[in-house]
Amino acid sequence: MRDNPIGVFDSGIGGLTVVKAVRSMLPAENIVYLGDTARLPYGTKSVDAIIEFSLENARFLISRGAKFIVIACYSSTSVALDIVRRHVDVPVIGVIDPGVVKALEVTRNGRIGVIGTSLTIFSGAYEKAFRKHGAKCEVLGKACPLFVSLVEEGWLEHPATELVAREYLQPLQEDGIDTLLLGCTHFPLLMPVFRKLMGDIHFVDASQELGNALGNALKAADVERSGRDGALSIYLTDLSMNFKEIGERFLGEPMTDFSRVTLKGL
Amino acid sequence: MRDNPIGVFDSGIGGLTVVKAVRSMLPAENIVYLGDTARLPYGTKSVDAIIEFSLENARFLISRGAKFIVIACYSSTSVALDIVRRHVDVPVIGVIDPGVVKALEVTRNGRIGVIGTSLTIFSGAYEKAFRKHGAKCEVLGKACPLFVSLVEEGWLEHPATELVAREYLQPLQEDGIDTLLLGCTHFPLLMPVFRKLMGDIHFVDASQELGNALGNALKAADVERSGRDGALSIYLTDLSMNFKEIGERFLGEPMTDFSRVTLKGL
Repeated sequence: MRDNPIGVFDSGIGGLTVVKAVRSMLPAENIVYLGDTARLPYGTKSVDAIIEFSLENARFLISRGAKFIVIACYSSTSVALDIVRRHVDVPVIGVIDPGVVKALEVTRNGRIGVIGTSLTIFSGAYEKAFRKHGAKCEVLGKACPLFVSLVEEGWLEHPATELVAREYLQPLQEDGIDTLLLGCTHFPLLMPVFRKLMGDIHFVDASQELGNALGNALKAADVERSGRDGALSIYLTDLSMNFKEIGERFLGEPMTDFSRVTLKGL
Repeated sequence: MRDNPIGVFDSGIGGLTVVKAVRSMLPAENIVYLGDTARLPYGTKSVDAIIEFSLENARFLISRGAKFIVIACYSSTSVALDIVRRHVDVPVIGVIDPGVVKALEVTRNGRIGVIGTSLTIFSGAYEKAFRKHGAKCEVLGKACPLFVSLVEEGWLEHPATELVAREYLQPLQEDGIDTLLLGCTHFPLLMPVFRKLMGDIHFVDASQELGNALGNALKAADVERSGRDGALSIYLTDLSMNFKEIGERFLGEPMTDFSRVTLKGL
């Protein structure tokens, strides 16, 4: 069981930012990653469609021996986490909870901003997670769909990106938040712009917190692997023109072992 | 046969800009529209995937009695038009050719800019179409992926949109183009920004030209319908949160008759 991989899925290759964090914190673990690039993005799809896709992704990872499943997609975590948990026999962790716990830990004034795709924000998943942790704080959600395209275009510090960020973030600034939770796999790459505009507040990148939570869970279940030579296998449901260039931007290392896979429902 | 509908498909709801043009020019015609919203966008998918999706879309429209098929998606036209033509028994028109013909008609200096998604531009489909028409002109292609997200966000005349447009269009301006071909269903909505930045040049919106070409083809085949009461049925493979709001922005009239359909391959 220790050698079995951690299965990670996302709607595309953005979830490789989560894999990057997990690999740097748990270098012994084998990882199997599934990016559903044939059906990305999930953020513009219906709730029913995302649930169906998520279950299919989870089943694929289990067929590859996954001992733990990480949902690295915020849209999927928002609407499908509980349902995936009910349908599979291995533990499932999403990207929302670990960020919420960290945000509650660092906020001083109790005003927390959350940014994500429209679906993540409007699903109310963050409000639900904050309530679950008994939080006495004000949660201000802001949908920022353009950030995804700007990151994929590689305009990480372009003046247009700054202008877009100013438009999205100004209301949060005026509301006096002291903590900003990044609720999308793509957003950590825009950190330089966020810092420049928002100044001296706390930024929470959930992928770091997820790595911690996952490490603790593996230890508690006594299934952690030792050593430093964890392998990474990447499966994508479609290989587009520039997936490798964008993927390596997220992963922070070369993508060596990758294959195309066709899921049954596709 | 005259009462049979014209079948129009697109990767999403952007193709409703084409339907809008066709309805205003051929008000008698019944139209069945299929938007493959469950698998949009096509521009980031592989060529194989787009071909497979396009064939499936065409077959669906034929099962609904289509007498003519219009591919309103530029990515799909770029890589799948010839293949769809070989696989179905009704005539198929794409969005690329009619725009190319018009651009050649209006250019004076023979320098023509083409803007579209990355896939449309890098596929070389426009260069091929210009060559087919024996064009002696310089074709300058520029991929503008961010325009799609900006239109879907509704930022049609936002300062950020202007800044993005300036970055994308400046090289074309410096090259001295006198004609700009809009190679994406979403781009006609940004016309005010394009005009402001590019000044007094020709803009070619292929959906208008496609309406003309389609009218002529229907007449030549003697299958045109008369009257002004053409019906519009819209099928979408997924219904997302704000499809109706965005769809009506493209269509320019209320969406009344729409349903969700699941294609076999989905």
